[in-house]
Amino acid sequence: MPIQITKLDSSQADFQSALSALLAFEASADDAIETAVTAILADVKARGDAAVLEYTNRFDRIPYGGATSMAAFDVSQEELQAALAGLPDAQRQALQTAADRVRVFHQRQKQELNGFTYTEADGTVLGQKVTPLDSVGIYVPGGKAAYPSSVLMNAIPAHVAGVGEIIMVVPTPDGVKNQMVLAAAAIAGVTRVITIGGAQAVAALAYGTETITAVDKIVGPGNAYVAAAKRRVFGVVGIDMIAGPSEILVVCDGTTDPDWVAMDLFSQAEHDELAQAILLCPDAAYIARVEASLNKLLPAMPRAATIRTSLTDRGALVKVRDMDEACAIANSIAAEHLEISAENPQQWADKIRHAGAMFLGRFSSESLGDYCCGPNHVLPTSRTARFSSPLGVYDFQKRSSIIHVSEAGAQTLGKVAAELAYGEGLQAHARSAELRLKSAI
Amino acid sequence: MPIQITKLDSSQADFQSALSALLAFEASADDAIETAVTAILADVKARGDAAVLEYTNRFDRIPYGGATSMAAFDVSQEELQAALAGLPDAQRQALQTAADRVRVFHQRQKQELNGFTYTEADGTVLGQKVTPLDSVGIYVPGGKAAYPSSVLMNAIPAHVAGVGEIIMVVPTPDGVKNQMVLAAAAIAGVTRVITIGGAQAVAALAYGTETITAVDKIVGPGNAYVAAAKRRVFGVVGIDMIAGPSEILVVCDGTTDPDWVAMDLFSQAEHDELAQAILLCPDAAYIARVEASLNKLLPAMPRAATIRTSLTDRGALVKVRDMDEACAIANSIAAEHLEISAENPQQWADKIRHAGAMFLGRFSSESLGDYCCGPNHVLPTSRTARFSSPLGVYDFQKRSSIIHVSEAGAQTLGKVAAELAYGEGLQAHARSAELRLKSAI
Repeated sequence: MPIQITKLDSSQADFQSALSALLAFEASADDAIETAVTAILADVKARGDAAVLEYTNRFDRIPYGGATSMAAFDVSQEELQAALAGLPDAQRQALQTAADRVRVFHQRQKQELNGFTYTEADGTVLGQKVTPLDSVGIYVPGGKAAYPSSVLMNAIPAHVAGVGEIIMVVPTPDGVKNQMVLAAAAIAGVTRVITIGGAQAVAALAYGTETITAVDKIVGPGNAYVAAAKRRVFGVVGIDMIAGPSEILVVCDGTTDPDWVAMDLFSQAEHDELAQAILLCPDAAYIARVEASLNKLLPAMPRAATIRTSLTDRGALVKVRDMDEACAIANSIAAEHLEISAENPQQWADKIRHAGAMFLGRFSSESLGDYCCGPNHVLPTSRTARFSSPLGVYDFQKRSSIIHVSEAGAQTLGKVAAELAYGEGLQAHARSAELRLKSAI
Repeated sequence: MPIQITKLDSSQADFQSALSALLAFEASADDAIETAVTAILADVKARGDAAVLEYTNRFDRIPYGGATSMAAFDVSQEELQAALAGLPDAQRQALQTAADRVRVFHQRQKQELNGFTYTEADGTVLGQKVTPLDSVGIYVPGGKAAYPSSVLMNAIPAHVAGVGEIIMVVPTPDGVKNQMVLAAAAIAGVTRVITIGGAQAVAALAYGTETITAVDKIVGPGNAYVAAAKRRVFGVVGIDMIAGPSEILVVCDGTTDPDWVAMDLFSQAEHDELAQAILLCPDAAYIARVEASLNKLLPAMPRAATIRTSLTDRGALVKVRDMDEACAIANSIAAEHLEISAENPQQWADKIRHAGAMFLGRFSSESLGDYCCGPNHVLPTSRTARFSSPLGVYDFQKRSSIIHVSEAGAQTLGKVAAELAYGEGLQAHARSAELRLKSAI
């Protein structure tokens, strides 16, 4: 049966509303999850390790009657190194290459943010100091969604930033450890690995327990319980964005092999039934060829069922007037992944203001970026690229302002501050400035 | 009656727990506010201008029976310029000086973030593009807490970043406009001023209405309704941090005029009964002199009652062993405002990892920074300086990754990506990379 994918044309009268309906996604708030998470957070905050131990034994079905102490969940550096050494050569080398490339890109990010100071004529010094966070927690999902590439993408920017303590938590359902995930931790600069997960792991990282020191920020993807827990501890610690379903938008001028574009759409759709894959193209005949490729290639895909549902429910093939219009629509969609699969892609990239990552030219498949180009694969979803950025070194650094006013500076600035402070009715502010005047008022 | 301020000594056995208790602050969640805000957001989303008009007329007690259309709430650029021209000369000049200095500092921030690209040996180009947000909303409180300095501090970084549309909303209870706030808008680069406020203004900015285009991010302080509304629209739009009570931590070596330090503590305490002012000093005799100054200076303060409550409930004078210990405690407090009022302050500043803003030397009173030094006065509160930064140009910019893989690059990267994708069970990812190989597999 052919894939029933939505087809739109930008010249149709109801195009804007049809596109909006396609893009609309509202994460459903699940009261049962919220209630469960609230209880787990409070319990871990109150009882510490004892609570984490109980929840982990129960939820992760730890075998042999469960662990008897938190020490059982610590993975030694030796075990991490052994996991790395134990991988097939090709896999180990691929992981190492990916890690090296991700590190190089993120070192460029770090170079960009150095802080600054400048000195004014009267000797007043102003500036901005950049410091790494002291400690972060990296959440890594366990079980079927255990992705070593996520370990690299979350931990390496923290390591490059200079974060001293990088604690990775990863649940091990039924006590089974994913060797590739442990190997990734070994090469990403993770300082401690603990095999716990769920809301209880988030609580342990945020509040600290007898055996786990509270961190300053928690990043990394997780299920609905983890997402709810991260939202709730935000403020106590920093968190990264709560990601929505993954998306790809392919803008194609009709010059790329349609099989390539079809497979790129599949690579997003295979993630999840809620994932979204959309093609914008000015060439109706080409769109028909991509659709033929989709139907031709689908049967060979191990995840065909997921791909079909994703493309049927949330995918679209969109005929646009021209590439300029495609770029304008791409800006309104502000996609997580934007492929500009075209001749001279830079001319179109220059018109793009909003996208998590731009993949330019027909050789830049999203999958290359997902694993090993170097830029991060943690990207803003659900149109949040309008106001947010890929995960980066900057997420593991923060700035402090530096203000060192000279005695001379206090004379001129003091009068300005006092004038404005009186205007706002804040007399102590005004007096505090005036006391520093030589002719103290 | 002398101020009953808490006195602590770092050598006392229960110092850590006493300090933690002092710092503890949990914003109470108010169910009535949450319920009201949820209803207002939904109503504005559904009914647009009509709902905003009704809520504004009611909550802000707009006179003469209320406004009959949204147009009544728009403030023309002419009216903004007239407000600026109408200020007393000294006030107008002070505002202009402050704005100029804030702009200069934030232009330095902008220079720091330019994005980058680099080209690899095989022609693959990687990089990061920095773009301003398209549009932002600036929330400015009305009534007694109407601060023109906040207009400058929120709008100028957006303007420097290159944001095209800067919409300021400010409620005008009883229809009364604050001329200094309008004047600040005139010089800060605000493109539109609308005299609406509360959750209804946040909803209008986030969802858009017939007369207000939805923005990409909302920043600026507000009351509990505004904070609750911002939390709820987060994700639809970006928001800045939800600020807790303001704090000052003064680290003093005992060489500053105690009146100056006392007034600096007042300048924080006068904001709010929940504001927190703490002194750390190794010199017990000096601490006693500061306490004497507090009691001497309090009666002349117009906001004496607020100051007294703040210092009694949340303030502290803390005797420490030495300045090194003071710096260590300052790092654990991670204060919004940190004054290092000491000889050679830089030696201590070098030891500080966590603070919103550092004020170095005895002439750098916090009040100078609040108004006119140049750095932003919107700073992370409640220990969040461990992981977050002052409001800055970077809050109005975002990054997009650039990935332009050459044909040669696709050959090497494709094999790495495919290896890892198969390892993660994502076959379409692997195939998408492999299709680009010359010897297509």
